[in-house]
This record gives sequence, C-alpha cells and structure tokens, in this order.
Amino acid sequence: MAPATRRSAILAAGALPAAAAAPPALPEWGAALGPGVIEEPYGTRSRHETATRRYVPWLTPDRVSSVSFTPLADMQGIITPSGLHFERHHGGVPDIPPDDYRLMIHGLVERPLVFTLEDLKRLPQVSRICFIECPANGGMEWRGAQMSGVQFTHGMLSGSEWTGVSLRVLLAQAGLRPGASWLLAEGGDASHLARSVPLAKALDDAFIAYAQNGEAVRPQQGYPARLVLPGYEGNMWIKWIRRIEVGDRPWFTRWETRTYADLMPDGLSRQFTFVNEVNSVITAPCPEKSLRGRPGFVEISGLAWSGAGRVRRVDVSVDGGDNWRTAELAEPVLSKSLTRFRIPWEWQEGQRAFLQSRAMDEHGRVQPTITALRAARGTESIYHKNSIHTWLVEPDGTVVNVQID
Amino acid sequence: MAPATRRSAILAAGALPAAAAAPPALPEWGAALGPGVIEEPYGTRSRHETATRRYVPWLTPDRVSSVSFTPLADMQGIITPSGLHFERHHGGVPDIPPDDYRLMIHGLVERPLVFTLEDLKRLPQVSRICFIECPANGGMEWRGAQMSGVQFTHGMLSGSEWTGVSLRVLLAQAGLRPGASWLLAEGGDASHLARSVPLAKALDDAFIAYAQNGEAVRPQQGYPARLVLPGYEGNMWIKWIRRIEVGDRPWFTRWETRTYADLMPDGLSRQFTFVNEVNSVITAPCPEKSLRGRPGFVEISGLAWSGAGRVRRVDVSVDGGDNWRTAELAEPVLSKSLTRFRIPWEWQEGQRAFLQSRAMDEHGRVQPTITALRAARGTESIYHKNSIHTWLVEPDGTVVNVQID
Repeated sequence: MAPATRRSAILAAGALPAAAAAPPALPEWGAALGPGVIEEPYGTRSRHETATRRYVPWLTPDRVSSVSFTPLADMQGIITPSGLHFERHHGGVPDIPPDDYRLMIHGLVERPLVFTLEDLKRLPQVSRICFIECPANGGMEWRGAQMSGVQFTHGMLSGSEWTGVSLRVLLAQAGLRPGASWLLAEGGDASHLARSVPLAKALDDAFIAYAQNGEAVRPQQGYPARLVLPGYEGNMWIKWIRRIEVGDRPWFTRWETRTYADLMPDGLSRQFTFVNEVNSVITAPCPEKSLRGRPGFVEISGLAWSGAGRVRRVDVSVDGGDNWRTAELAEPVLSKSLTRFRIPWEWQEGQRAFLQSRAMDEHGRVQPTITALRAARGTESIYHKNSIHTWLVEPDGTVVNVQID
Repeated sequence: MAPATRRSAILAAGALPAAAAAPPALPEWGAALGPGVIEEPYGTRSRHETATRRYVPWLTPDRVSSVSFTPLADMQGIITPSGLHFERHHGGVPDIPPDDYRLMIHGLVERPLVFTLEDLKRLPQVSRICFIECPANGGMEWRGAQMSGVQFTHGMLSGSEWTGVSLRVLLAQAGLRPGASWLLAEGGDASHLARSVPLAKALDDAFIAYAQNGEAVRPQQGYPARLVLPGYEGNMWIKWIRRIEVGDRPWFTRWETRTYADLMPDGLSRQFTFVNEVNSVITAPCPEKSLRGRPGFVEISGLAWSGAGRVRRVDVSVDGGDNWRTAELAEPVLSKSLTRFRIPWEWQEGQRAFLQSRAMDEHGRVQPTITALRAARGTESIYHKNSIHTWLVEPDGTVVNVQID
C-alpha cells in the first residue's frame, strides 16, 4: 500500500471524487423498513440491472437453431451467472422431467447400462471451474464483420463451476471391450446433436454434469444433465445427453463434417479440431463501456483462456502492438478456466489508442495477429478464431471495434 | 482408473443401474422443437427444481429482522447460486437506485470523500471466491435445539465470487491521519447496522464489492455495494454500505455489544470475536438426503471452511468419532473459501451409523466436540459454534440430527 499520507498515482490521475463538503442527506431508503426475508425464496437481481443475453437477428434463420451471447462487458471475475450464460441450441430447449431422464451407455461395452438421474447422483462426484466457448466465437470477425461490442465479438463464452460424475466411473461400470477407442455422445433434444469424442479424453477429465454454479444445470445449458469436456469446443459438451455409444472409430456425424469443421485455404477441412486455442479479450474498456467523459486513471481488464491448460501470461498494448506490458492475473488461475487479467493505464481526452491483449498459455501457445491467422487459415473459415483483438479508443473516448495487425 | 474390464468397488457395492435390455423409447421432448434462444434473456432455473431459501417462524418476531437459510443439501461444489444465498436483514431490503448511491469516507482522514458507484467501478478491481457465514450459524444447536436438517443447522453459510475495490485503495485516496487504527462501517438500510473494523484488516484483504458471482450484487446481499471481510463474521460485511468513518478506537455499537458478542460461562462477554472458526458439515447424506432404499455405495460429501485461511484436512467418521478416515479435498482449495470434501463409504440396510466430519485448517485449528465447546464456553452462547456435527443414520436409512460427543 502507498503511504497513507501520499496522494496515490490513481488520485493524481484524476479518478478522485469530489471532496465531501457535507455528508449526503439521509436517503428515503434508509428511513423506512424494506421487505423481509424470503420475500423471494428464490432470489432475483435488482430491478435496476438490465444486462441480458442478446442475439443477432440476421445470423440465423430462426431462434430455434441459433445463439445468444453473454454480456461480457457487464461480467466481473471468472464466474458467469447462469442466467446470463450464452446459449447455442440446434432444436430449441427441451423440457425434461428429471424423473423421466435416462442416460444409456452401450456399444463396445461388457454391460449396456441405463442410468437414471438418481443413479448418476449416487456415484462419486467431481467439480470443476472451467470455461465453455462455442468454436464459432469470433467467426463473424474472421470474415470481416466488425460487430458492435464485446457481447457479439466474444460473447459465446462463459465460465461456471460444474459438478457431476466422471466418465471414467461410468465407463468402468459398463466395462470397455477390446478395441474401444471412441465415444459417440448424443443429445436428447429434437436436434439429437451427436459428436465423436476420443476415449482418451473421456478417461482424462470428462464428466456428466448435473449441477452448474452450485444448483441444477439450467434448461438452456442441458438440464438435467450434460457432457462437460474441459477445454474442448462447446458443441461437443452435449446437452440433455441421452446416449453414449462406445466404438472403435469416429462416427463422422453431420455435426463434425458439415459443421464444426475448420475450412482451410485449400478448400479442405481439418478432420477434427477439438481444443479451443489460447485466447483473450479486453472487456473494459470496450464499445459498451467507453471512456467518454472519463479521462485519467483507467484499469484495463479482460478475460483470457486456453483449452490446453492454464493461462501463463497476458500482455496488453495500448498502441496497436508496438509496445506491450504484462498484466496481473487474478487468482485463482485454473486450468481450462477463464482467467481475469488487469493492468492500470492513463488516458487523456484527445488521445487515440489501440487496445490489444495477447495471451500465452502454459504450453507456450500465443495468440496470433488477425493477419497471421488469415495467412495460415484463409478467410472463409469460421471456427477457432483466436487472433489478437483490437479496440480503438477515439479521441472523445468512444470505443470501436477495428481490425488491424 | 480401475481396469475397464474389472467390476469396480462401486459396482460391487450395489450402485449399478439395471442392465439395459432395450434402449429407452424416444421421449416426447426429443421429437418436437423447444423454445429458441432468448426466450429468457435473463434465464431462470428449471420448473422442476424446488430448492428455496427457508426461514424459521418461531426464531424472530417478524421477517424484517430475520434470517433465511441456504438449502445446503441441494448445493454442489463451492459456489452458492445468488438466488439461494442466505439472508440476514435487520431492517428489510432497501431498494437503492444505483445512480443515487453514495459511499462517504470521513473521520481521521486528510480528505473526506464521497464516492458514487461509478467512482468505485473506475478504481482498480479485486476478485475473490470466499465464504460468508453468520456467526449465529448453529447457535440453535448449541443451546440444545436439534433442527430438522442441514438447511437449518448450517444454512447461514454461502460461497460466492465477489468483485470490487480494495479498502486499501479507497483509504489511500482519502489519506489516513495520525492515530487512525479503526473504521466504522455503516449500512444504508433502515437498521443502519454499524460495526467497528480494525484498520489492519481493512488494509489487508477487505474490499467494497459491487459484483457477486459475475453480476451485480443481489439486493438481499447489499446492492449496489457491500463490505467484504474475508473470514470475518457475516454481520460485519456491511450491506448497502453508506459510510466508513476512520477513528482511533472501536465504537462499541449496539451491534457489537448487545448482539454479536460471545457470552462466556462467567456471564461476561468477549469484546470482539471477528474470525469464524474452522468448521465443517456433511451435506450428503443428511436429513434432507436420506439413504432410505439406497443401500450400497455412498459418497459422503460436505463443506469445510475456516476464517483464518485454507482448510488443510477433513477427517470423517461413521462411528461417532471412534475411527476417522481422511477425505479428499476437491480443487480449488482457497483461503477463507468453502472447500468441498468427499469420501467413499458403504452402507447396508439395518446398519446404524453416526456420521461426523472434523476439519483442520492451515494453522492447525481443529473443530472441538460439542462437549468440549460447552465446557469451554458454556451453554448460553449463540455465536461461533464450530463443534463437530453428527448425523445419525437409522437402520432404515433415515438421517436425523443428534448431539453426541
């Protein structure tokens, strides 16, 4: 801490509120009793708060197979409230009575099994705080669109604490037969989205989650149970999961051939790209949280993540990548979890700035520039865009989305 | 992992679901499209989920100055959803428009200051996952009541990720004057609850939080801003905070003399007892989650916490303390945070068992027995009960709250 009698750098930078001439008058809310306990047995947020999930009308033909975005500009820390978790549905949200839920495990197993939800809850638990990201996050940017704010450039991203039962445990119950090397995980909604998962991943850290942020998984997130594949792209985290089939090769479902396959410059697609690459974005300031009328001290803050492990370092530039400073990473820094970074800055009216963040993970993976990404992977791709993102701060403090190298 | 072809101990213990003779029929929810995205722009939980905060009608004369309890039996992991966070109000919940909110810092400072909410949000941020516990948690048990479930024995306890601005930063803005050694923190609600806080704590890890679990603090938890004092008793985490006065001695408010003071056997009270002691409770099984009809494998799971730092170890007994086994602590194990512990067990119908957990923190503090607690601190006290708790599993699997040594 700075010596208590010295004006701090923050103070000098102009963030000081007006000195109090007199204490504020007693407000009306301090002079009357409010509602008591359990007026809301299940609580809701303040009526003054308005952040919501949003969608892009032109992006999909309907809202049944569409996406909504988390308002990242309003999010603090590394946990996303479940009510603001982004959505991606392919056949809408099913309403599944928990007593009627079943999960079948079959295929190359010794004992095909059908689990009720209660069966799953009886088995040993695992919990994990981790991020989930749709691999199409930022895909519109890749193709040249410049969306109006961080909710749309990066908002298919959320962080939760998930709890459930390890696939290791479930597969041990069923008993794997010789040759077992892949799983097919299939959803119980009308789209029956199905993805092939390597057995090695299933035996590593995959689990069936029935809880999210302490309570039951929300309907939009797969109630009553979904697959969690830490670090893997979000569409593989099968929601409303009804079936796991064990086999000896991938299935090549339409969900991993027609969609969710990385189109390369030569016109071919990568077969599978499971892991979300190291990535980061500045969430303050951003287009939704401008600097208009706010000269002086600014704390630049954002989120970093890597599907391969822990974030090791985040560098921040205010001049479009000419100079970089290393940001502070807020504890806890967890593997395959959102990591919050922060760094102080000072902005003056009339100053133009290009804000960028560049994350590195524990394996040394670093975000590329948008130019390097396009050079390697072309301009027609959608998935796994992880290039360095740029916010332009205009001289008046307005923040806009630009693409520079 | 157990070899895939070997029947695991869990399986042998009888947790196996019925082998699937045929796959389940396609359920109706898999044959029709559901609602699309942003049907709920701010999401709610499944209509099938019913866990709620509850209160005890005979405990307080009204609900304006009362308490509601978190349904710990339904909680997983270490994050409590904000909608189920326990409540303790002394004058009901004020409705504070965020633009009208003010925080004044005055007293032994060089520059009295008044902060708006926007001022607070501009300053450097801190985030922390930590527990909050009312010091009266378990007080009814201490006096001999045996409440019907873990929601009422331990439910004045929740865990959240809080984000805000450090008191270090705010006090540096105001500048401390010679002799400054205590703060008074006062709430803006009609009760104006006010507590004295040592300056050393304020400069260590205290902060003013405006976010909880990623979004704005909920009204019942102090919207738009509250004090967070990691590890200190919950009533000191002043909600709707309006004023911090710096002084050279504690204030001895009614909130720290008439209430929230530990009554000792000799009739005197301890002057201050800020830190919540090391504690733990088994949340599964418990009275709300019995073992009736569920012989075989049981995972005993619960929560441990210490206001002094990290939980180092949790031992579990199934025979009332004659024998102990050490449970697994789930990652992350964070200082002054809830820590989830788990340990496998096997229960057979007809078996009576006395389940206990005993936590130790990084400083070597260990939970006492209820007899040892009463011997040291008498039977008329309410606050800071942290004795080992016992659930009796009856031969039919019913779980009841008992007090044994």
